[in-house]
Amino acid sequence: MAISLVSELETPSVLIDLDKMEDNIESMQKHCDNLGINFRPHIKTHKIPDIARRQIEAGAVGIACQKVSEAEVFAAAGFGDIQIPYNIVGRRKTRRLAKLAQQAAVTVTVDSKPVVDGIAEAAQEADVTISMMVELVSLGERTGTTPASALELAQHIAATDNLRFAGVMIYPSDAAVRPRLLETLGLLADAGIAVETISGGGSGASSDAHLLPELTELRVGTSIFWDWTCVAVNRASFDNCAMQIIATVVSANEPDRVILDSGSKAINSETINGQFGYIVEYPDARLHKVNEEHGYVDCSACPSPPVVGEMVHIIPVHTCVVTNLHNQLYGVRGENIEEVWDVAARGMVW
Amino acid sequence: MAISLVSELETPSVLIDLDKMEDNIESMQKHCDNLGINFRPHIKTHKIPDIARRQIEAGAVGIACQKVSEAEVFAAAGFGDIQIPYNIVGRRKTRRLAKLAQQAAVTVTVDSKPVVDGIAEAAQEADVTISMMVELVSLGERTGTTPASALELAQHIAATDNLRFAGVMIYPSDAAVRPRLLETLGLLADAGIAVETISGGGSGASSDAHLLPELTELRVGTSIFWDWTCVAVNRASFDNCAMQIIATVVSANEPDRVILDSGSKAINSETINGQFGYIVEYPDARLHKVNEEHGYVDCSACPSPPVVGEMVHIIPVHTCVVTNLHNQLYGVRGENIEEVWDVAARGMVW
Repeated sequence: MAISLVSELETPSVLIDLDKMEDNIESMQKHCDNLGINFRPHIKTHKIPDIARRQIEAGAVGIACQKVSEAEVFAAAGFGDIQIPYNIVGRRKTRRLAKLAQQAAVTVTVDSKPVVDGIAEAAQEADVTISMMVELVSLGERTGTTPASALELAQHIAATDNLRFAGVMIYPSDAAVRPRLLETLGLLADAGIAVETISGGGSGASSDAHLLPELTELRVGTSIFWDWTCVAVNRASFDNCAMQIIATVVSANEPDRVILDSGSKAINSETINGQFGYIVEYPDARLHKVNEEHGYVDCSACPSPPVVGEMVHIIPVHTCVVTNLHNQLYGVRGENIEEVWDVAARGMVW
Repeated sequence: MAISLVSELETPSVLIDLDKMEDNIESMQKHCDNLGINFRPHIKTHKIPDIARRQIEAGAVGIACQKVSEAEVFAAAGFGDIQIPYNIVGRRKTRRLAKLAQQAAVTVTVDSKPVVDGIAEAAQEADVTISMMVELVSLGERTGTTPASALELAQHIAATDNLRFAGVMIYPSDAAVRPRLLETLGLLADAGIAVETISGGGSGASSDAHLLPELTELRVGTSIFWDWTCVAVNRASFDNCAMQIIATVVSANEPDRVILDSGSKAINSETINGQFGYIVEYPDARLHKVNEEHGYVDCSACPSPPVVGEMVHIIPVHTCVVTNLHNQLYGVRGENIEEVWDVAARGMVW
């Protein structure tokens, strides 16, 4: 018997409010349209081709994936413009990347010469062209390199067979990175190297995009669903959050010891203010601890605590990691289930 | 082309050292044999029927699963004695549980009357018998109830059609819970209720089992692999840890900013001393931060920091959650891959 109502679902399950998701798709596209730049959704947040298709239909120029194995899923689903803003390292990975480049236009990012050379070898072997952006290190000090080294890499890429220099990438593209971006662009201009794409990203940083008029595109993932992390930094409100996890109270022997059937295996173990999720029906409750299959809720501040068997809705701290824990997401309007999506690129770690 | 060597695997991948795993299976079984109690492995740590089969062959009496959907995977693989130490709540779940009880001997735990009654209804409808243990609340104050309430529940179970009272469960069964266990057993004895099983559990608490001579069985999961959490509390040494995640250095532009291709999607986001994993080759390194696909390693204290393309081995903070993130585990002896296991019960949240 097909399930058609939310109340018929087992818990934990992940609901996507379709009205909110559609609003979120539209407003990020409009934001980029108003800035006159391209929008490139990062699929890590949903990992579902059908949802990415809706983003393309709304005006996105292509997609971003974080891993070759994710990109393979989307190439097989017909996506033709795929950016992987990641250093692809290792023989097996670079070979898969080169094979992928036979199916779709593929752009990667690099931050050192060994990464460039590994990819070049595979591209030459497979006789494909792979586009490369150099990554500038941002405030988070993750991957990325300095302006001077970016220039050297750009020159090396431009001089290497089967590679095409495609531009500069930075993540997150907060306004504070502009001096380093301008320095890099100046060095590239002085060297006579054309820069096609200047790609910024990050759900938080997307509100800074007008302060970086050099950007030609924005890569954003989380804005399609938003989450408590984004609400906490005032990028969205709880009302914008399209993802909710439904959970059931399985134990409520005392108001300060109420247990949900949803723990780190369903809602992850990241926190905001020491809490693992926001319980919509009980805003005074604190989901203060998780084990794999248990969520610990202190309801002692709730006027009327929940009872065993009651279903609650949880807004997660971080949507992308929740998606990766589940085999399906359910697209809903009110109580009606309109979509049952397999999370096609779930668990793609390679 | 089949992969036969670890060096041919893509990273991140999860390796299980078969020699260490076999030693760990044997020593926990021996521990229980020496105590004269049953060993019941909790499969949450590996989620793989073939591994559980090795535990049964070594002497285990049956298995424990945390969810009905996990139990279904193991029942389909031929396991006939399955304990689910969890309050099973909700119509769809209790019906699945009753169906499961047609295939295997099923025991659940309960801590309130509504949970008992929900399961009873489904058992009566399907005309099956489900065994039930009452759960005593332990020091962690998760699920479980008081001795007085445990007596009431036992009486209620014994008086209900299609249910069988099977005993008392407590988790974790640290020595400190003995007074409450003895009180419960006294109440049950006074009421003339026979107690077949007294089930304790927890990898940490397993070393306290001799201080709780009332126990008839131990449920333990993590001891098959051990992990940094267990090492940190002196339950095991790094040398006992059978699970390692292989990762590749993708960026090493500075010694205090080395980035691995393995983040929370591969090694999870739980920590010990602010670290997300122990890097075997670089004991002085600190894996101090993760994003989904990036592990941040400070190698400034390392005599000779790693280079891009180098593979490292990570002992995880918590094995069970790592297993749930991956589609396969690789059983290895030295450099040779002997087993490629699908994680059959991965993502079973229901």
